[in-house]
Amino acid sequence: MTSDSAVNGHANGAANGAAKQRTPLRAGVYSPTMTFFDPETDEVDIPTIKKHAVRLAKAGLVGLVTMGSNGEAVHLSRTEKAAITRATREALDEAGYQNVPVIAGASEQGIKLTIELCKESEEAGAEYVLLVPPSYYRYAMDEEALTEYYTKVADGSPLPVILYNYPGAVAGLDMDSDLIIKLAKHPNIVGCKFTCGNTGKLTRVALATNALNTKTAGSGYMAFGGMADFTAHTAASGGSGIIAGGANVLPKLCVKVWNLWAEGKHDEAFEAQKPLSKGDWVLTKAAIPGTKCALQTYYGYGGYPRPPLKRLPETTVKAVAEGVREVMELENQL
Amino acid sequence: MTSDSAVNGHANGAANGAAKQRTPLRAGVYSPTMTFFDPETDEVDIPTIKKHAVRLAKAGLVGLVTMGSNGEAVHLSRTEKAAITRATREALDEAGYQNVPVIAGASEQGIKLTIELCKESEEAGAEYVLLVPPSYYRYAMDEEALTEYYTKVADGSPLPVILYNYPGAVAGLDMDSDLIIKLAKHPNIVGCKFTCGNTGKLTRVALATNALNTKTAGSGYMAFGGMADFTAHTAASGGSGIIAGGANVLPKLCVKVWNLWAEGKHDEAFEAQKPLSKGDWVLTKAAIPGTKCALQTYYGYGGYPRPPLKRLPETTVKAVAEGVREVMELENQL
Amino acid sequence: MTSDSAVNGHANGAANGAAKQRTPLRAGVYSPTMTFFDPETDEVDIPTIKKHAVRLAKAGLVGLVTMGSNGEAVHLSRTEKAAITRATREALDEAGYQNVPVIAGASEQGIKLTIELCKESEEAGAEYVLLVPPSYYRYAMDEEALTEYYTKVADGSPLPVILYNYPGAVAGLDMDSDLIIKLAKHPNIVGCKFTCGNTGKLTRVALATNALNTKTAGSGYMAFGGMADFTAHTAASGGSGIIAGGANVLPKLCVKVWNLWAEGKHDEAFEAQKPLSKGDWVLTKAAIPGTKCALQTYYGYGGYPRPPLKRLPETTVKAVAEGVREVMELENQL
Amino acid sequence: MTSDSAVNGHANGAANGAAKQRTPLRAGVYSPTMTFFDPETDEVDIPTIKKHAVRLAKAGLVGLVTMGSNGEAVHLSRTEKAAITRATREALDEAGYQNVPVIAGASEQGIKLTIELCKESEEAGAEYVLLVPPSYYRYAMDEEALTEYYTKVADGSPLPVILYNYPGAVAGLDMDSDLIIKLAKHPNIVGCKFTCGNTGKLTRVALATNALNTKTAGSGYMAFGGMADFTAHTAASGGSGIIAGGANVLPKLCVKVWNLWAEGKHDEAFEAQKPLSKGDWVLTKAAIPGTKCALQTYYGYGGYPRPPLKRLPETTVKAVAEGVREVMELENQL
Repeated sequence: MTSDSAVNGHANGAANGAAKQRTPLRAGVYSPTMTFFDPETDEVDIPTIKKHAVRLAKAGLVGLVTMGSNGEAVHLSRTEKAAITRATREALDEAGYQNVPVIAGASEQGIKLTIELCKESEEAGAEYVLLVPPSYYRYAMDEEALTEYYTKVADGSPLPVILYNYPGAVAGLDMDSDLIIKLAKHPNIVGCKFTCGNTGKLTRVALATNALNTKTAGSGYMAFGGMADFTAHTAASGGSGIIAGGANVLPKLCVKVWNLWAEGKHDEAFEAQKPLSKGDWVLTKAAIPGTKCALQTYYGYGGYPRPPLKRLPETTVKAVAEGVREVMELENQL
Repeated sequence: MTSDSAVNGHANGAANGAAKQRTPLRAGVYSPTMTFFDPETDEVDIPTIKKHAVRLAKAGLVGLVTMGSNGEAVHLSRTEKAAITRATREALDEAGYQNVPVIAGASEQGIKLTIELCKESEEAGAEYVLLVPPSYYRYAMDEEALTEYYTKVADGSPLPVILYNYPGAVAGLDMDSDLIIKLAKHPNIVGCKFTCGNTGKLTRVALATNALNTKTAGSGYMAFGGMADFTAHTAASGGSGIIAGGANVLPKLCVKVWNLWAEGKHDEAFEAQKPLSKGDWVLTKAAIPGTKCALQTYYGYGGYPRPPLKRLPETTVKAVAEGVREVMELENQL
Repeated sequence: MTSDSAVNGHANGAANGAAKQRTPLRAGVYSPTMTFFDPETDEVDIPTIKKHAVRLAKAGLVGLVTMGSNGEAVHLSRTEKAAITRATREALDEAGYQNVPVIAGASEQGIKLTIELCKESEEAGAEYVLLVPPSYYRYAMDEEALTEYYTKVADGSPLPVILYNYPGAVAGLDMDSDLIIKLAKHPNIVGCKFTCGNTGKLTRVALATNALNTKTAGSGYMAFGGMADFTAHTAASGGSGIIAGGANVLPKLCVKVWNLWAEGKHDEAFEAQKPLSKGDWVLTKAAIPGTKCALQTYYGYGGYPRPPLKRLPETTVKAVAEGVREVMELENQL
Repeated sequence: MTSDSAVNGHANGAANGAAKQRTPLRAGVYSPTMTFFDPETDEVDIPTIKKHAVRLAKAGLVGLVTMGSNGEAVHLSRTEKAAITRATREALDEAGYQNVPVIAGASEQGIKLTIELCKESEEAGAEYVLLVPPSYYRYAMDEEALTEYYTKVADGSPLPVILYNYPGAVAGLDMDSDLIIKLAKHPNIVGCKFTCGNTGKLTRVALATNALNTKTAGSGYMAFGGMADFTAHTAASGGSGIIAGGANVLPKLCVKVWNLWAEGKHDEAFEAQKPLSKGDWVLTKAAIPGTKCALQTYYGYGGYPRPPLKRLPETTVKAVAEGVREVMELENQL
């Protein structure tokens, strides 16, 4: 498919008053970008953030997510959030990647607060937002409350909303396919990121929403695999793409796996998936500090997360480097 | 004991540069105050907030917590948070309750963000802060990370820190007595709210920290029971007070239970505790919407929480009213 | 109060056809007894089990629970379970403690299976059973299912049933006071063990059921604190006793705390509670292997749990011994 | 591939003294069979169990699992368990399906108890066992304890062991790929059922163990998808088969999906997967009672689970019937 046929966000743009055409979301690989800090001061390191964004776009990613879990959104002030999203947009534009949209995480616990952050995200250059459900009042977040939250936010957000189903970050709250499909009827809810790893659920949602996939633009709804370790599975399921932390380190391999399936090379896609699943797990287990280590080792930048996330001991740094060596060799051949 | 002997916050005030003497925390009953909204617009209703604060102080509460879980902090902007804390302080001052300090919830996921909010809380008139641990990266929040978080925040906060141990709000994260006792060694960590309901833990912490209690100022450390349904237990355990959502509705009864124990009327304290435990459970089960209902029914104000918290159906409103009728009669006789 | 006035189990005994009078449950301290194994063969060590039972009765415990969590019921065959309960009963009888009843854990996931185990428990000499709720089908265990389970089991069990509310052992399932109070209406459900540690809940249940306590036989319903670290709190709450793992190691101190409250020495009770809460935590944190270590160190028997529970490394053994040294000195003075 | 080349269990059979050749596990679809009860007496209904087994074998399943979660093992006595496994084996033999092995669930919390149940399973005709990890002492079940448990059980079991990774049934305990791969080195641990739904994990484990798959016998290790809703994903991942509750109702469609992938019809496999994922979800959400309803509606038998699992109200029965109507039409065309 070509990206031109994607329609998501269109109706919404009209409905919510956007003047210019929104950059469509294309099938393929997205990354929730890491946020980089000065190792001495812990201040946001904009030049590295820009360099990283361009590196990922050059590697073939079709969209970037700022302010996701990997981006340490919860450690950043609103000013910093906006600066990072803006810098990411600028970096992409300066490097000629106007067709690579920025999706911004904009989650807050309350409806009004979330809408405000959606607006600030738009001002900073984001074209879509990615939102985990509220979970502070975990006991109260039943289907009715979640419907209220997402519906009202989508009503008020100038940017189309992508649900972010990541139970590990929200006290185990796991939205099922019935709820996700119901919410997809809202014209301004245009996708879901499945970080739950439930490919059966993704299959059902993609089917019910007629999601954009490797063969068709469908309705434009985006069903995203949430990790690199099921990239091929997502493509095969009729999913729209992946938003994968591992793509910070292994963007080309993710793209290759995705494209192999898109090109009908099914066996090759799943063959290439195997070392990706293996290497991505090393990053997942070592989490944000480990992913930054891997970047530092193999790309010369990365640094550390903001505390209370830790700086890893040297033995772990080496173990991570060793753990991804094999898959990095594949990455570097692409 | 008299409040004059309380020393908590003193050393810290000096260390962190506070010019004026901090209002000491006294043994007794505190309430995490509800935040009230206009039922039409959902905007913050400052006059009702002020009226409520004064009502609670008149009822004998010795401190108020703004921006707690009951205060819907997560639904409020920073401007609103500051306005509410400021209005609460002003209301208390205007009514002559200068000796009733305001503790403000100031939790953020990151260290720098939390410190900023602590500073804003101070500017708004709070004298202490209450902080849940970060939990977005739940998998990473081990003892080392929590120690880092609280230590660095306490280093940077102009206000003394009270730990807020509420597993239900932070993905089950439950700090044990070893950690709480270790953190108590920091000169700017001056207490803990046990919303876990673990009275054995509270007993251990109160013992180890030589907490202020009904008999002695001790070190000034504050070990707070976190709910009204174990008020007498807290007093008996050598605890310093309770910070109880139920005290929004039943302040006099909470105070009575506390004082009975303090006066050595032990049997009477636990006799009075029984209907309190019974009535408080109705409020706890009906949570924020239900507590607001009870206020509306029995005090003529209360309204609704901000969505996605729900407005209760009429049958539930009546059930809550009925469920607390007996204990409200006791309250109204005081 | 005297134990003669206790009435629990009486009505049921009649209803379910028991010929002889059931030994009444008295207010006071109970222990879920450890099960001891030969350190070479891991076979059940009956002589040590008998010796332990007598030691606890001599120390003043008023009942023993075999086949509880501390008794490693889940590691034992039905033949072993019966043998241990029988040996415990025999040991108590031989030592003249006919008035110390044995309560047996008899939990199974299914109703019929649980009733069978209740019958086997009776044949082995138990007079009451202690039952956690089923949790394998955790998603299905709502209030209706739990009511069905306990009601049908209580209908069919020859022994009166005590609910065992221990969320940590049953996937977080935590029965609230409404459910516990509703179930208490069944004539053959005669108590609840609160291992949740929720003293407010215990207070409500004791109130609603008119539980036996330090002052009155009430209805005979037994509201048991589930750990030694809130012994005094339980007595003060109108609870009926404690069933405490820590009483395997510190029976006399538990009894002393309980009796101090019962004798109206309220301050002394809570003073004595403090070192108990401190020492009991060491045992709780080190769990079954650690409690056995403490027994080995201070009583010369104890050994190890069955695998996959671990044998502790020597450093931990020493740390446990050191951690309870202070409280053991108090115990040994009694 | 043909089943003749499968080697799993072979080495173990020799090591643990099995006289006859074990029926090899083939790539394809397995079902954890439901256990049927007389609707009046709740007694095990052997004739229906046998009929069901034969129906599934005729539909193309290559193995049956008795005493799984769907089989309500936790509601059955050991005598009943053995009778059901024996009847299932007999039914298959009588119908000429000697090449369809029976895998039996044989989980107990303790090592010795599990080994005993493995032996009884063998005597009853099972050739493999499927084992969830212990979880009663959830806090203690770290990697070391789980390694101890599975290693010792595998040492002592006469039947090869398949790990059963089902967090929902064991208090959230979720074994990661590192542990599963480590355990796979034991000669008598021959597979894993991934009911976690984590296809990335399955991909890694299949890769590391050189699992049997649609193309090769590999090492004979079996990496099983644990639900029908990711059947094609499992095949594509290099998995060995699925063990799917949904295959009780939709066996032919599961087989079709699996075979389409095996035959290289990749797009068709994932197309056929879509309605399967949709229909299987209805069964998963309605769980055991609902799956039995669907059998009753569409096959004329099914009945009810043993309590405390519920009998569904008529409206839910109809909703389930309606929810699977579409997929049942596909099933019936095969």
